[in-house]
Amino acid sequence: MTVTKYPESETDVLIIGAGPAGLMAAYWMARYGVKARIVDKCAEKVMLGHADGLVPRTLELFDSCGFNHRVRNEGVAAVISTYWGLNEEGKLVRQEHSGENTESRMPFVHTLLGQGRLEQFILDSIHENSSIKIERGVVAEGLSFNELDQEDHSAYPITVQLRTLNSEKSINGETHAQNGPIKLENGIVNRQPSDESNGVPSQIQKEEKIEIVKARYLLACDGARSWTRTQMGLPMEGSSTEYVWGVADVVPISNFPDIRRLAMVENSAGSILIVPRERNLMRLYVPMPKGQDTQTPDAENGTTNGRRDKSTFTPDDLRKMVQAILSPWDFDFKICEWFSAYGVGQRVASTLSRENRVFLAGDAAHSHSPKIGMGMNMSLQDGFNLGWKLALVAQGAADPSILNTYNAERLPLAKMLVEYDRQISSQFTKDENASEDIQKTDARTIHQEFEDFYEGRKAFYPASNLVHKLSSEKEQKFQGLVPGEKFPVRKLLNQARLDTRWTTNILESDGRFRLVVLAGDIRFPMQKDRVDQLGSVLPSILNRYVAPISQFDGPINTLTIHSSPWDEVEYHDFPEVLRPFDEVMGWAYDRIWSERACNYDSECEGKAYEKWGVDLVRGAVAIIRPDQYVGWVGELEDTVGMTKYFDQILTKAPTACNGNVETD
Amino acid sequence: MTVTKYPESETDVLIIGAGPAGLMAAYWMARYGVKARIVDKCAEKVMLGHADGLVPRTLELFDSCGFNHRVRNEGVAAVISTYWGLNEEGKLVRQEHSGENTESRMPFVHTLLGQGRLEQFILDSIHENSSIKIERGVVAEGLSFNELDQEDHSAYPITVQLRTLNSEKSINGETHAQNGPIKLENGIVNRQPSDESNGVPSQIQKEEKIEIVKARYLLACDGARSWTRTQMGLPMEGSSTEYVWGVADVVPISNFPDIRRLAMVENSAGSILIVPRERNLMRLYVPMPKGQDTQTPDAENGTTNGRRDKSTFTPDDLRKMVQAILSPWDFDFKICEWFSAYGVGQRVASTLSRENRVFLAGDAAHSHSPKIGMGMNMSLQDGFNLGWKLALVAQGAADPSILNTYNAERLPLAKMLVEYDRQISSQFTKDENASEDIQKTDARTIHQEFEDFYEGRKAFYPASNLVHKLSSEKEQKFQGLVPGEKFPVRKLLNQARLDTRWTTNILESDGRFRLVVLAGDIRFPMQKDRVDQLGSVLPSILNRYVAPISQFDGPINTLTIHSSPWDEVEYHDFPEVLRPFDEVMGWAYDRIWSERACNYDSECEGKAYEKWGVDLVRGAVAIIRPDQYVGWVGELEDTVGMTKYFDQILTKAPTACNGNVETD
Repeated sequence: MTVTKYPESETDVLIIGAGPAGLMAAYWMARYGVKARIVDKCAEKVMLGHADGLVPRTLELFDSCGFNHRVRNEGVAAVISTYWGLNEEGKLVRQEHSGENTESRMPFVHTLLGQGRLEQFILDSIHENSSIKIERGVVAEGLSFNELDQEDHSAYPITVQLRTLNSEKSINGETHAQNGPIKLENGIVNRQPSDESNGVPSQIQKEEKIEIVKARYLLACDGARSWTRTQMGLPMEGSSTEYVWGVADVVPISNFPDIRRLAMVENSAGSILIVPRERNLMRLYVPMPKGQDTQTPDAENGTTNGRRDKSTFTPDDLRKMVQAILSPWDFDFKICEWFSAYGVGQRVASTLSRENRVFLAGDAAHSHSPKIGMGMNMSLQDGFNLGWKLALVAQGAADPSILNTYNAERLPLAKMLVEYDRQISSQFTKDENASEDIQKTDARTIHQEFEDFYEGRKAFYPASNLVHKLSSEKEQKFQGLVPGEKFPVRKLLNQARLDTRWTTNILESDGRFRLVVLAGDIRFPMQKDRVDQLGSVLPSILNRYVAPISQFDGPINTLTIHSSPWDEVEYHDFPEVLRPFDEVMGWAYDRIWSERACNYDSECEGKAYEKWGVDLVRGAVAIIRPDQYVGWVGELEDTVGMTKYFDQILTKAPTACNGNVETD
Repeated sequence: MTVTKYPESETDVLIIGAGPAGLMAAYWMARYGVKARIVDKCAEKVMLGHADGLVPRTLELFDSCGFNHRVRNEGVAAVISTYWGLNEEGKLVRQEHSGENTESRMPFVHTLLGQGRLEQFILDSIHENSSIKIERGVVAEGLSFNELDQEDHSAYPITVQLRTLNSEKSINGETHAQNGPIKLENGIVNRQPSDESNGVPSQIQKEEKIEIVKARYLLACDGARSWTRTQMGLPMEGSSTEYVWGVADVVPISNFPDIRRLAMVENSAGSILIVPRERNLMRLYVPMPKGQDTQTPDAENGTTNGRRDKSTFTPDDLRKMVQAILSPWDFDFKICEWFSAYGVGQRVASTLSRENRVFLAGDAAHSHSPKIGMGMNMSLQDGFNLGWKLALVAQGAADPSILNTYNAERLPLAKMLVEYDRQISSQFTKDENASEDIQKTDARTIHQEFEDFYEGRKAFYPASNLVHKLSSEKEQKFQGLVPGEKFPVRKLLNQARLDTRWTTNILESDGRFRLVVLAGDIRFPMQKDRVDQLGSVLPSILNRYVAPISQFDGPINTLTIHSSPWDEVEYHDFPEVLRPFDEVMGWAYDRIWSERACNYDSECEGKAYEKWGVDLVRGAVAIIRPDQYVGWVGELEDTVGMTKYFDQILTKAPTACNGNVETD
């Protein structure tokens, strides 16, 4: 395919698609300083509409990236949901509400905010941390994969031909084309915070240009109808579509009591899902009656993609349907910021990678309906899971085998979500074909799995060189720290400053592994000896591996969380390796924290050790991966276990002093 | 003075000085859409150094302006402070710590952040809300006041000649001139979040230009050596200086245990105040030994201004002094971002206004040492107190008599702070001239007053047409709502959305008075009747006055806070006047809140009525001024009292239906 007359260049990582998955992966490229490019066929970034739901775990990750405060400031928290149905007299009534007993706590609760704003927050972070620019209006139109090079991770087996579109041919973001924003006759606009300069305004070129890019790794983040996936011949499994849904962002004019709450309403006229949103908007999901789901051929793919022809679907159709369902309450709108129709399909790729050189992420890897509110979260978390691994490998700092874990960790989750969505959707649309048995028995298990995932309790990552599962004996000792699951979030008190921060924020997603020393109560001399002993061995572990980034002193940082009262111990009581010194910046004061409660911060409730299931005096050590998942847990003395963990992953520094660490 | 050959223009409000006081006043001009200009002689905004302390009340006001989340994100909370002194063996030890029992709670606790960042947050808000631009590099050089026009609030009695400096003559911000930032040989920089485009880069003109501006009102916010104050002949009272202090922002390299805490250290070598700051910085205050406080003539004013000649004061001097005081601990720094020396003077203007046409605010009105951490807070709160009153009067929406309250409310506070600072300073520098009696008896009273003010418990605003004090009988009924004090902050649950927000944020500083209906428990039919009865009368009060801004429907909004459980009442149970309808935006869902606790938000603790001292069933009504201070409190039936309150302040609409409201 390579046409040699076009200019050619090389990049370590090429990301096709600048949606949530692609941007989140690009975040890591920015943090690690990887040579990367990210292209998107649309000339403009998403501004309005599209996905909008953020589950607690996603917000925790955002906090580790440094922008959750922006989500809190603009988004709408929606924890409690209500269900409306017909009562025995045929009257539409609120039948129940749920969510009050959630484990989630502010600031990490289910929150709604338009995708365009989230993308902006990630873009701003990429911009702050690197010179990576999103190349918009750029279409990939040729792709070849050299199988001979696939084993050699220094080679560039991927060749992509990119065409930068000119203004005539450029593909506008949907929201600026047929889907809105709707111009109102009275000229009223609902103020949207202005997006920043990165990627906006659109970078439309006057002249088309074509170039050839050779890449070591390729990420396909180009959506449900991924061109890249098709080119690579990676198949999708599952049904393409059964139902067509209408979706819209409107400012409701309604006396329906729960019009500003997360609510599901079922009536003889149909059912709708109501989602509260920022700027007085609401998101509406309406399944179309069966007769209306006209299957139209998709011009782009030449296949029947199950989407209703949008030209026949108008906000007026939607208005009428919602009016019928919410009756006898009023419903209307004058502002419709975005609307669309889509087919509900549950599909998942059979594999998320090809030879660990080409990867699928986000909608390119799995698609399900937006009702379960997980689409964008899965995409963001896919990019988050893959990005740091790829960055470490691309920089020669980690063994390429860690890339295996992307498929192993994310594919089962994708399958679970797709299965859950299939069940929920059939219930929602009252599909008579779905077996009642499936709905009642399997549904319960998968519902629990989904809830665990939704709340961020579980990610179900299996054993691998990144996840060392515990023996059952050890499981008893460290009940709250489960390798393969997240590090449970607590707010802690800084020993040096006496201010408070969430663990998510302390464990900043800067690309480092964290060796979390739960130092216990060092007022006990025996425990202090144990910590000092660990301190004397740790330097040989920390200095054993190559740093992925020039400004890092190594790929591992320590974080110490003790259980003593802050006023009975001092920062300098801890071994120096746990509070490293820099000749310009002085001591690292953000490395020593106390798990005790702080009276002036009601979120800092103390009892972190209890939550983590760790002995208050003796503590433990946990290795936390760059994406905040637990990789390893053990006693302070188990330096062999720590070293083994890192040896399987990280590249040893040529000058590493193996010192007193025994690995066998 | 008017030189007619220069171009002439008119503005309603002219603000001289774009520091904290001037910007905060300009915030109100932006929110109300007042025709205003704001000029500053410096060509660039403050970037580094200067003031840095924010007390709880200031953060509450920032929350009402919509940018407290940015302060939380960048600033350092410092609630607990420590005191170090020599013990009996002459060893420097931590003798006590305090602050744990503060009433403050996150997110409204004492926070440190450089003035330049706060100014940026205000600038961004001004920019979002108006087209007002800060005119930098503009010097006022002629001022006349036409006393004949002073009574006529539609006249322009103030004439100011402004000179826009060219690049040769422009006055750089101190931080970019002699005071830093210090360039390090190794080129290390400590990353500062980038300031935005508003006002930066500097607007240096190629050619000088002179213009004449006629203004209805003039705000002198031009600092301690205010040119405007001098021109207007408004005298300052108090001592000019006694001591010279060194001050610096450094990244400390020190093993002193409390180098990252708010700490005062007294040693035989002297005393220092240590303040933790963002980006690993610390702020140091060091009083110079008596022999070193060379009084130098101030070239600008031709007076002895008490400032030590900065050219003789270097970071090395400071380093050595701190090293001596912190001995035997190490102390050094390689990054010094800003340093300065200043004379400690306690001075206050004899009046803050001239004929309610010219006003002094901030350092132009009062100066004290930075040790008590109130300077910037007083300046911000001065601007905040004055701005909305001026904006309402300038737009003809309020009676000019409300301007009297600026002097009445702020001058006593300024005097109290200056007196407190005088006492603290004499203790700090061990002034033998200060009488011991004063230190021990008066000090206690003023210390309590200061603490009340610092925590935001009290502002001590006296009775006026903006503050209707309560009879002692009424005081018993509404113990937590005191006219002249702030509306005590609580986090509430929104009835329609079931999300939570702080009252400060709900009572957005958009320029409106708020009629806060504490509706009580409307599950009781008798109470619901009382609320409905109030609802039937309220429209005639709300529609009685002219709107200050075209997009406002009036100068008063309602906010309803009930005490019923959210799931036993509905949004639409409340009278429509409390949840007004707009034909495009629908119902106003942010108007009805519950005081009940919310289990998923630990900050939403419930018991707001208890805090406000209001009966849970019967409730009350409070009128909150645009600056979030309580103006009036009464029963739901006291619509006469409410109307009287507003009648004394607001301009009646020509079409106002006086309806069934009796004012006598």
